[in-house]
Amino acid sequence: MASVALDADPADLVSMRGHVTALLAEFLDRKARTAAAHELPSEITETLRDFLLFGGKLLRPLLCVTGWHAAGSNGGLRPVLQVAASLEMFHAFALIHDDLMDDSATRRGRPTVHRVFTARHTGGHSERAAAHFGAGAAILIGDLALAWSDELLHTAGLAPRQLACVLPHLDAMRTEVMYGQYLDLLTAGRPTADVDAALTVVRYKTAKYTLERPLHLGAALAGADRTVLGACTDYALPLGEAYQLRDDLLGVFGSPAQTGKSALDDLRDAKATVLIALALQAASPAQADRLRALIGNPRLGEDGATDVA
Amino acid sequence: MASVALDADPADLVSMRGHVTALLAEFLDRKARTAAAHELPSEITETLRDFLLFGGKLLRPLLCVTGWHAAGSNGGLRPVLQVAASLEMFHAFALIHDDLMDDSATRRGRPTVHRVFTARHTGGHSERAAAHFGAGAAILIGDLALAWSDELLHTAGLAPRQLACVLPHLDAMRTEVMYGQYLDLLTAGRPTADVDAALTVVRYKTAKYTLERPLHLGAALAGADRTVLGACTDYALPLGEAYQLRDDLLGVFGSPAQTGKSALDDLRDAKATVLIALALQAASPAQADRLRALIGNPRLGEDGATDVA
Repeated sequence: MASVALDADPADLVSMRGHVTALLAEFLDRKARTAAAHELPSEITETLRDFLLFGGKLLRPLLCVTGWHAAGSNGGLRPVLQVAASLEMFHAFALIHDDLMDDSATRRGRPTVHRVFTARHTGGHSERAAAHFGAGAAILIGDLALAWSDELLHTAGLAPRQLACVLPHLDAMRTEVMYGQYLDLLTAGRPTADVDAALTVVRYKTAKYTLERPLHLGAALAGADRTVLGACTDYALPLGEAYQLRDDLLGVFGSPAQTGKSALDDLRDAKATVLIALALQAASPAQADRLRALIGNPRLGEDGATDVA
Repeated sequence: MASVALDADPADLVSMRGHVTALLAEFLDRKARTAAAHELPSEITETLRDFLLFGGKLLRPLLCVTGWHAAGSNGGLRPVLQVAASLEMFHAFALIHDDLMDDSATRRGRPTVHRVFTARHTGGHSERAAAHFGAGAAILIGDLALAWSDELLHTAGLAPRQLACVLPHLDAMRTEVMYGQYLDLLTAGRPTADVDAALTVVRYKTAKYTLERPLHLGAALAGADRTVLGACTDYALPLGEAYQLRDDLLGVFGSPAQTGKSALDDLRDAKATVLIALALQAASPAQADRLRALIGNPRLGEDGATDVA
C-alpha cells in the first residue's frame, strides 16, 4: 500500500495529485498481476493505465480532498486519498462511455478507447466488425472502470461510520450524472434556443457531478453537517456552471492543441449547449437556418465550422 | 419498505422470488417518483421496470438466498432479500450491455433495450441517428442499472461486519464477469476447435457469475467460513458449466418460442462455444469449411442454420 507522509498537507494540491496518481498506478498494477496470473488479456489494465495516468487534471479527486480539508480534516488522509482515486476511476468510466456515445476520435490528445480497440481489430476483419469490436471493448472497459471505482472505495479502509456517510452522496452522484448524460443524448441533434433546458444538462452533467458531489464526498468523510454541505453546494453549483460554459466555448473556439479535443465534435454532434441556445436567440431567421443546417452535420469541415463561429 | 413475514421460509423459492420482485418494484417506483419530482424523463425507470419484472427466472437472487440458508441463515432475511435483488439489478445491467454488443433483437420474447430506444427515435431522424440514440440509451440505462445495483446493496441495512464480508465477493464477481465478456468478444467471429478456450469463457461468464458468486454472497451474509465457501464452489462450478452447455444447445437447437431468443444469433455472431468447438473437431475438412463459411455470416437465414445443425 502506498505510504503517505503523516505530515502531508492536504492543501498542497500538487502533492495530493501525486499521491492519487500513485494509488491508481498501484491498484492497476495489482489488477495487471492478477490478470497475468490467470492468463487473462493484459490490454484492459494497460488501457486504463494509459487513460488514468497521463493527462488528466484530477479535478474531482482534488476537490474531494479539499472538501475533507474544508470540513475539518477529521480522520486519516490515506483513506480520503483512496476515495479521491475512486472518483478518478469513475470519471474514466464516464469519459470512455461518453466518447463512444459521441464517437469522438481523440481525448487528451490521444485516440479514444473505442478507436484504439477498433484499430487493434482491423487486420483480417471487415471495417464493420472492427468498429463493433471497438465499441464492445469500450463498453466493457468502461464497465470495469465503474466496478473498480467501487473496489477502490470498498478497500479504502474507511470506518463503518465514514462509509455510511459517504455512500448516499456517491449513489446520488451516479444517478445525477447518468440522467444528465441521458438528457444530453436526448437533446443532441436538436439545436434549441431554450437556455433553461441547456442549463439543466449543465447542472446534472457538470455542476453537481464535477464540483458539488466531490466536495460533498470529501466533507462527508470528515463528518460534515448540513451547514457545511450546504456551503459546499453554494460554492460549487455556480462555479460548475461557469466551468461548463467555458468548456463549451473552448469546444468551439479553443485550439485542439490545447484542449486535446477536436473543435468540430460539439458542432457535429449538435450538442444542445447554452452557447448554441444563445446564438440561436441572437440570430436573424436566415442566420438561424444556416446555423441549424451546419450544426449536427457529421461531415462538417473546418470551413463550415468557421462559418458557424 | 416491503415487509417480509418473520416466519417466511427461505427454502420456499416461489415465495422468495415474490419478495425479490416486490423489492425491485418498490425501488424502481421510488426512483420514478424522484425523477418525476425533478422533471426528469420517465422512460428510464419504465424500461428497467419492464426488463426486471417480467420474464426473468431470478436464478441469481434465489441462489443468493439459498447460499445464506445453506450457511446457517444467521441474521435477518430482509437484508438478504435486498442483496438478492441487487444481483438481479446487476444482471439487468449485464444483459442490456450484452444485447447491445451482440446487437440481439429480442430478449425474453420482447425487443431488446437498444432496439426499443432506436424505434422511439425513428420519427424525424435518419436510421443512423436512431441507431446511435438507441445504443447510447442502452449504454446509459445499463450503467444506471449497475449503479442502482450498488444502491440496493448500500441500503439493504446490512451490519458493518456483513458488508465487510460481502464486498470482496461482489468485487470479484464483477471483475470475473467483465473479463469473461471481454474474452467472449475477443473470440467471437473466430470459430475454433479449442474446447479449453471455450470452457474458460464458460467458467468466467457463467459458472462463477451465475452460480458460484451468488451462493458465496448469500453464504457470506450468514458469516460462512472457508469450508462452506469451498463447498459452494465445488457444487457451483460443474453445475454452471452444465448450465451453459445446455444454453448453447438451446441457442442453436431450441425453439425461439420457448427460449425468447432467436435461434440464429449465436451462429450469426460466431460465438466460440464448446458446441461449435466439438462440431469443428468432429467435422471432415469439407464440413469444417462449410461450417466456417456459415457461422458468423450476419445474413445467415433459417436455411443456412438448418444446414449448420
